Amino acid sequence: MPRRYLFEASDLRIYTQRFLMRFNVSEEDARVMADVLISADVRGVDSHGIIRLHSYYGDRLQQGLVNAASVVSVVHETPISASLDGGNGLGPVVAHKAMARCIAKARDSGIAAVTVRNSNHYGIAGYYAMMALPHDMIGVSLTNSQPLVAPTYGRTAMLGTNPIAVAVPAGTEHPYVLDMATSIVPIGRVTVYHESGETIPVGWGMDKDGNLTEFPDAVLDGGALLPLGGNDIMRGYKGYGLALLVDILSGVLPGAAFSTGVGHPNNPGQADVGHFFMALKVDLFRPAEEFKADMDELIQRIKGGAKTPGHDRIYIHGEKEFSHAERCATNGVPVIAPVVDALKAVGEQIGVPFDLTPIGEDSAEG
Amino acid sequence: MPRRYLFEASDLRIYTQRFLMRFNVSEEDARVMADVLISADVRGVDSHGIIRLHSYYGDRLQQGLVNAASVVSVVHETPISASLDGGNGLGPVVAHKAMARCIAKARDSGIAAVTVRNSNHYGIAGYYAMMALPHDMIGVSLTNSQPLVAPTYGRTAMLGTNPIAVAVPAGTEHPYVLDMATSIVPIGRVTVYHESGETIPVGWGMDKDGNLTEFPDAVLDGGALLPLGGNDIMRGYKGYGLALLVDILSGVLPGAAFSTGVGHPNNPGQADVGHFFMALKVDLFRPAEEFKADMDELIQRIKGGAKTPGHDRIYIHGEKEFSHAERCATNGVPVIAPVVDALKAVGEQIGVPFDLTPIGEDSAEG
Repeated sequence: MPRRYLFEASDLRIYTQRFLMRFNVSEEDARVMADVLISADVRGVDSHGIIRLHSYYGDRLQQGLVNAASVVSVVHETPISASLDGGNGLGPVVAHKAMARCIAKARDSGIAAVTVRNSNHYGIAGYYAMMALPHDMIGVSLTNSQPLVAPTYGRTAMLGTNPIAVAVPAGTEHPYVLDMATSIVPIGRVTVYHESGETIPVGWGMDKDGNLTEFPDAVLDGGALLPLGGNDIMRGYKGYGLALLVDILSGVLPGAAFSTGVGHPNNPGQADVGHFFMALKVDLFRPAEEFKADMDELIQRIKGGAKTPGHDRIYIHGEKEFSHAERCATNGVPVIAPVVDALKAVGEQIGVPFDLTPIGEDSAEG
Repeated sequence: MPRRYLFEASDLRIYTQRFLMRFNVSEEDARVMADVLISADVRGVDSHGIIRLHSYYGDRLQQGLVNAASVVSVVHETPISASLDGGNGLGPVVAHKAMARCIAKARDSGIAAVTVRNSNHYGIAGYYAMMALPHDMIGVSLTNSQPLVAPTYGRTAMLGTNPIAVAVPAGTEHPYVLDMATSIVPIGRVTVYHESGETIPVGWGMDKDGNLTEFPDAVLDGGALLPLGGNDIMRGYKGYGLALLVDILSGVLPGAAFSTGVGHPNNPGQADVGHFFMALKVDLFRPAEEFKADMDELIQRIKGGAKTPGHDRIYIHGEKEFSHAERCATNGVPVIAPVVDALKAVGEQIGVPFDLTPIGEDSAEG
């Protein structure tokens, strides 16, 4: 386990905001983006957190591959829907504006859906779904991404890891927050094994010839990830079907790029990523208090079920992330040493030194 | 392979309708139900077809466990939504009425969602999603079911196989039709292995102590199915998360039973199954012709991808079922001999003899 430094979340947010403003991102947009990115670290989804600040955003801003001003324009709009163009702006800023508009519409009408084309990598999908929670709405957030996943019986990556995020309010329990890639694992997980020299479980990925492999390099070198479910015996075509559905709703429906057309956040050229958002007021169907009481009952019933040998706890989706956020509030937000080093190097280079003082350090997964 | 008799689809529909009318189901409701059930056989989803005519429907009608008159009442309604009570009627009839209402609302408003409580097993989920297709809408159909699936780290079945069905129109290509249980396999698949004396692939199910098993009887005897993905290494908690989401939307949101509260279609007592439907007009976001042209492009691109060793074709969801339906139109609809025998026995008993003349027979999977 690499050494980890623990920082105040507010310090990380302020640094991220300053970093982005250096590239002419407005104060307000930089504030939104800092909140999205650092929320990922706070929730323990560090693959989508501050680690991406330069590689997915700063670097693209510097090269002029994304626009510092995230000007979102309306292609078509009704009281319950909007089809937006993200103007090749910053994905998290564009997505935040789109979901805010979706929620505002759903407040009036009960349901709303918003599509976005011409955007970029938007960070953690769950952030936008969770924006619906304080309004007693169910929130949905989908995005496509660069091709990494092979369809069943195919050996070429033709679909993104296309996440599905859905957030549902509860009463006294934590909300249900599903935020899942439709592949078995995201590509970052394979990279972690590659960097540590370990083999991956057979079934996660295939090599460029379409054979399952335990070698992460073989997946990274022209291979592909398998969809949730894995092979056909284990019904991987269902995960493939979900990945395809996300591409339809967030790529085809908005008129964005889809399948192999979606650009990689590290490559030149416009990514033309697409998103899909939906918000649905619970009290359109039954009183919110009744609904939330039954959510508590459902959650408690499932958590109270008998456990398999070797396990003493059943988790609800989002629960581990809420616990991680609680630990961060007490102990600080962990950032691994290599990421701190990289931030120091790039901060130096662009004139926004990463000079935060950690409030602690550790070396174990908390 | 058991011997199969091939029947005209129209003959099977007429018989099913007569069978149901014997139990005082109205001519119109019986016609709808016959279409839903026989569509399952025509699409090759025979586990939800005429095989269930007596066990899930006739038997429950006879015992007075479901109402022959499927009186659907409105709990709450807006121009874009309805919360319905199925009056413990026949699931397919109730679901058909609910989706028809959903589509009518979406025709005016662009998007609509309808929930149903107090219903019963509704047959194939995809049927209702596909009702949206002729209207250039995307259709969604979800239902909960009796508990069969254990949550990750749990060993008690606490969630149904809770299917997700989504249908999306295309242009010259067949529509995309996802219709998937959120478990790896439905329980009927395990029963098939049990009846043939074969072992099941390890990972599909667990015994009552929570251990993975290759013995179908161990799953059927107080065990549980695993959610899509399987164990935690292969990210089975995502399939568990999807099963839970379906229970939230089709159980908790409508105010129906959920989790362990949902009744089994073969057991006494009200099942209180819940459903969730949604319809979304494609041209709310972009012109339907553009959308459908891009759907064709997406489908063709994926199908044209390089194949894995030993495979020469990549399928789109619904494609195999459309091919099956085409074969049925030419050759007739296959019904295995044991099901024909059972229909003859029950038909004799209730006074509606199963006297259809097959147009052919075979013994191989077509």
